[in-house]
Amino acid sequence: MDASPAQPQALINKLVVVGLGLIGGSLAAGLKKRGVCAQAIGVVRSGDTGKSALELGVVDRICQSLEEIAPELGHGDVVFISVPTLAVPDVLKNAKHCLAPEVTITDGASVKGSVQRAAEEVFGQVPPQLVMGHPIAGSERSGVNAANPDLYEQHRVILTPLANTAPEHLARVTAMWQALGAEVLSMSVAEHDEVLGATSHLPHAIAYSLVDTLAQDIDNPNIFRYAAGGFRDFTRIASSDPVMWHDIMRANKDSVLRALDLFINNLSRMRAAVADEDGDYLLGVFTRAKTARDQYTGLDRRRPDPE
Amino acid sequence: MDASPAQPQALINKLVVVGLGLIGGSLAAGLKKRGVCAQAIGVVRSGDTGKSALELGVVDRICQSLEEIAPELGHGDVVFISVPTLAVPDVLKNAKHCLAPEVTITDGASVKGSVQRAAEEVFGQVPPQLVMGHPIAGSERSGVNAANPDLYEQHRVILTPLANTAPEHLARVTAMWQALGAEVLSMSVAEHDEVLGATSHLPHAIAYSLVDTLAQDIDNPNIFRYAAGGFRDFTRIASSDPVMWHDIMRANKDSVLRALDLFINNLSRMRAAVADEDGDYLLGVFTRAKTARDQYTGLDRRRPDPE
Repeated sequence: MDASPAQPQALINKLVVVGLGLIGGSLAAGLKKRGVCAQAIGVVRSGDTGKSALELGVVDRICQSLEEIAPELGHGDVVFISVPTLAVPDVLKNAKHCLAPEVTITDGASVKGSVQRAAEEVFGQVPPQLVMGHPIAGSERSGVNAANPDLYEQHRVILTPLANTAPEHLARVTAMWQALGAEVLSMSVAEHDEVLGATSHLPHAIAYSLVDTLAQDIDNPNIFRYAAGGFRDFTRIASSDPVMWHDIMRANKDSVLRALDLFINNLSRMRAAVADEDGDYLLGVFTRAKTARDQYTGLDRRRPDPE
Repeated sequence: MDASPAQPQALINKLVVVGLGLIGGSLAAGLKKRGVCAQAIGVVRSGDTGKSALELGVVDRICQSLEEIAPELGHGDVVFISVPTLAVPDVLKNAKHCLAPEVTITDGASVKGSVQRAAEEVFGQVPPQLVMGHPIAGSERSGVNAANPDLYEQHRVILTPLANTAPEHLARVTAMWQALGAEVLSMSVAEHDEVLGATSHLPHAIAYSLVDTLAQDIDNPNIFRYAAGGFRDFTRIASSDPVMWHDIMRANKDSVLRALDLFINNLSRMRAAVADEDGDYLLGVFTRAKTARDQYTGLDRRRPDPE
């Protein structure tokens, strides 16, 4: 085992992050800060991103490609893929021809079905060394300059292991996230994509569409000027990275469409109730929704609504 | 002039708040705290609300009805109507037969067209003493226990005066809000209802419908458990008071329907783009929306997004 002499106790020897944005940069910075990895290496195409990552201390080294670092990697090393969702297949292709099977591979893509399909195409089946995962810690902020070593504290990470996922690799990835203070949960790929499609991808589609409706379709140049208090919170996710969300909507197409259809149908029923002055229907929906949300926020006591 | 000997400089002699919830309670508490009114009187039906308001020091006195206090009111006194929107007409009926024309009347209803129509029905025309207004300081919190004397600091208040609104009453209401640290703006009734329909009433309809879709239409009991970070902010307004929002959707029916139709049309176009894998369309909407929101939040520097 090629343990670093400086930190022989490190859970991970070399951490290689492919794609240094908010998610990958925060992972590297967090593991470095806590001494969980002996060395953090960033694989980035952009020289500017690499320069910033080194200056910020997010990683110790920068490579131009996975191939460049692959010969140094073996047992105890982890490759974390955190490029936009639709760029994952190309990284998996590289991984197949250059990474040894002892290397742990994991990812942070927001959609797991598309990663599974890509891995099956590239490898024939999802390899035992690949532990698919998704840290639920997105933000409207993006880029390596937004990297935060404490981003994952008290956040959830969902892993979607398959029957043939190797226990050793699953254990290493689980311990890696737990070392950052995250709560690690496990579910199937299908359930992950359905749940995230409904609770994350649908809200982003709605928020983008709402802001676009106000900016484009409502003919009032002052429309944002008088926006009420809740509007800022409500539209915060519409400031998220457009390329990342383009990829997610396409990668999770089926679940996003199902969620969109249910929502458009529900909202159209509400529209009919407003038109028909059906007060009972409106009061029913509003009361059910308030009750459901108040229960949900009551269950999650870690970040209470501001008093 | 019946000025209180204790506070002879007060801008307002008696402030009467009809309906002591978050909005009315915060106005009374704020004016009392700053010595802007000599006496604050709450008109409430519920004995519990009245008791709480007195205990919290939100008002100095409680009455059961506007008729009870009306004989004491004259020049320099202000009646603020802050009952749910659809209850405003009944208050205006009482006001007509018991209030002297020297008394300033104003309101905090979220829809101004319905108040104008009610006043025209009751008085024949909107009386010069009635200054229609709307403090943009709603919250998912409600009730007199949520009253906050500083609620209106750095918030906007929109007044919608008519051609025959008496300058003296308009000046008093303007000064009242400014004394609380609010920025007072003026616009037409029609523009107010269109802008608020799009930036406040539409988002509330969407948020209620989204939470209801997840709670009712998506058959997954764990759906809220894995909700991502942005979900909490995105749905906060769905915890707002259902009765208040039922009233608003009905009172601003035409503007809400127009905004809903534009939004449903925009979202349906996005749905088609997801189905057709039209990446250019998706990227176009997401980029436009992010640009518009970033500009909007850049313009309003008072409450920046958290870093």
